[in-house]
Amino acid sequence: MLDVALLGTGGMMPLPKRWLTSCMMRYNGSSLLIDCGEGTQIALRELGWSCKPLDAILITHFHADHIAGLPGLLLTMGNSDRTEPVTIYGPKGIGRILQAVRVIAPELPFETHFKEIQGNESSFSVIGLDVTAFRVNHRVPCYAYEVSVKRGGRFDVEKARRNNIPLKLWSPLQKGAVIEYEGRTLTPDLVLGRARRGLKVVYATDTRPTPDITRHAMDADLLIIEGMYGEHDKDDNARRHKHMTMPEAAAIAREANPKAMWYTHYSPSLVRPDDYLKEMQAVFPRAETPRDGHFTSLSFDDEE
Amino acid sequence: MLDVALLGTGGMMPLPKRWLTSCMMRYNGSSLLIDCGEGTQIALRELGWSCKPLDAILITHFHADHIAGLPGLLLTMGNSDRTEPVTIYGPKGIGRILQAVRVIAPELPFETHFKEIQGNESSFSVIGLDVTAFRVNHRVPCYAYEVSVKRGGRFDVEKARRNNIPLKLWSPLQKGAVIEYEGRTLTPDLVLGRARRGLKVVYATDTRPTPDITRHAMDADLLIIEGMYGEHDKDDNARRHKHMTMPEAAAIAREANPKAMWYTHYSPSLVRPDDYLKEMQAVFPRAETPRDGHFTSLSFDDEE
Repeated sequence: MLDVALLGTGGMMPLPKRWLTSCMMRYNGSSLLIDCGEGTQIALRELGWSCKPLDAILITHFHADHIAGLPGLLLTMGNSDRTEPVTIYGPKGIGRILQAVRVIAPELPFETHFKEIQGNESSFSVIGLDVTAFRVNHRVPCYAYEVSVKRGGRFDVEKARRNNIPLKLWSPLQKGAVIEYEGRTLTPDLVLGRARRGLKVVYATDTRPTPDITRHAMDADLLIIEGMYGEHDKDDNARRHKHMTMPEAAAIAREANPKAMWYTHYSPSLVRPDDYLKEMQAVFPRAETPRDGHFTSLSFDDEE
Repeated sequence: MLDVALLGTGGMMPLPKRWLTSCMMRYNGSSLLIDCGEGTQIALRELGWSCKPLDAILITHFHADHIAGLPGLLLTMGNSDRTEPVTIYGPKGIGRILQAVRVIAPELPFETHFKEIQGNESSFSVIGLDVTAFRVNHRVPCYAYEVSVKRGGRFDVEKARRNNIPLKLWSPLQKGAVIEYEGRTLTPDLVLGRARRGLKVVYATDTRPTPDITRHAMDADLLIIEGMYGEHDKDDNARRHKHMTMPEAAAIAREANPKAMWYTHYSPSLVRPDDYLKEMQAVFPRAETPRDGHFTSLSFDDEE
């Protein structure tokens, strides 16, 4: 229902066997990408997912390890004969970044649009998913992303009858329409039961821990979170460069209690993230240290 | 004496096991790079050569598969604590490209300079090597590069005596100094024998065949040349997109007679360049179809 892949898991610079951190989600035949460092198009090819249906790219911040792969990816999308526009979301200044990207990749068979994210928190809809960008705490303006699939209630025949809704309006109301009818404004809640649990994925990297990350990650289906360092002697480094350590992320997960938790954005100095996994699982048992290409398919609780 | 490595051999887009075409040369403790597509910094790391002593980058043309790796490479050079400036050479417009690169990679601990190559042919000196850029025939302005190590004659004692050169000036003149002495202008040729054969490498890709490529490659130590397609049914494609086929490059080599010849810039559709090697060697026996990371060390004829 919602496929999520971690294309790469590295921070700072791409390494021979570790691509830069980037996440792709597929939903209803479209896809979105979060971050695009150098080599992301190759990581995508290795995973075997197509870059053609990629309608939107969300950028967390403007450090090169999160944006330098844009020219190559857009060109490869162009070579796949895509003609539909692509929209790139990011902090204030994304227009200037896109302009620079288009100097390097000027000839594309599709339009590229950009949307600047404003303020501390901003919600919008992308490929049918509800996205909330929320500001985190890095050296430059940086956003984390909550991506969710909202899910309405079941159709409730008794409720529709009780509310006196004509049979012919049941279906459009169930599908979300708001209808003016004989002087009444009819809304979907008149025929639907209580909203059900949907799906929620949170992607937060290149930041110090913040209460907002915990709040958004609360009961998420998947929390993808920075684990730049495992070694305790790197704590100062993390604070100074505004990154997050594996223990700090584990503490967030313990509080937010997501169903799954993936570390990412490992420092080049963190050669074997697995070395720290046991210690982290003592704090949050569902912690995982995935490698490039790790993916999952999320579906609603009661769906088989 | 002159180390030459082909970091990647691919054209158009980086592939899981084929980096984009790019060539590094090391000489006297410095190095230069020709072209820098997405992933070149990883190719360099796989080869095991350092990016720190990289003083100059020569760009053939502004298609992304030759420039999109610049932001990442420069940042990684910055992370290696380099502080000396880096100069980037390229066709008219290289300043605008560098400006875009610096939007993506704004924070570097060294200066970046650019030099625009003018006209059909232009010679300059880089890290002690003599470079001649010459215009080739692609869809956009594109240069090939001849890189050479010039070599003076041996010191000739008899000649120095015959020319009445005082002993104390022998060494500086041998090293290339021009000296005003007692009303005479003394030049190195007064103490040196005939200039000896030096070293010459020619790098020509993204072009139709041109007489200038043959002329510059004449008796080169190494010709690195585009072999975009091996299949004969791609001849039209090559002409239309202004690329060179393997047979076309072999014909150039047969005429120019380089000591070694490396194909590069294979199309993503050319999965096994080796399949065409025998056919090419029938035209030019020293043709090679190297893979990424292929390298050689060139030295003067009479040096052990």
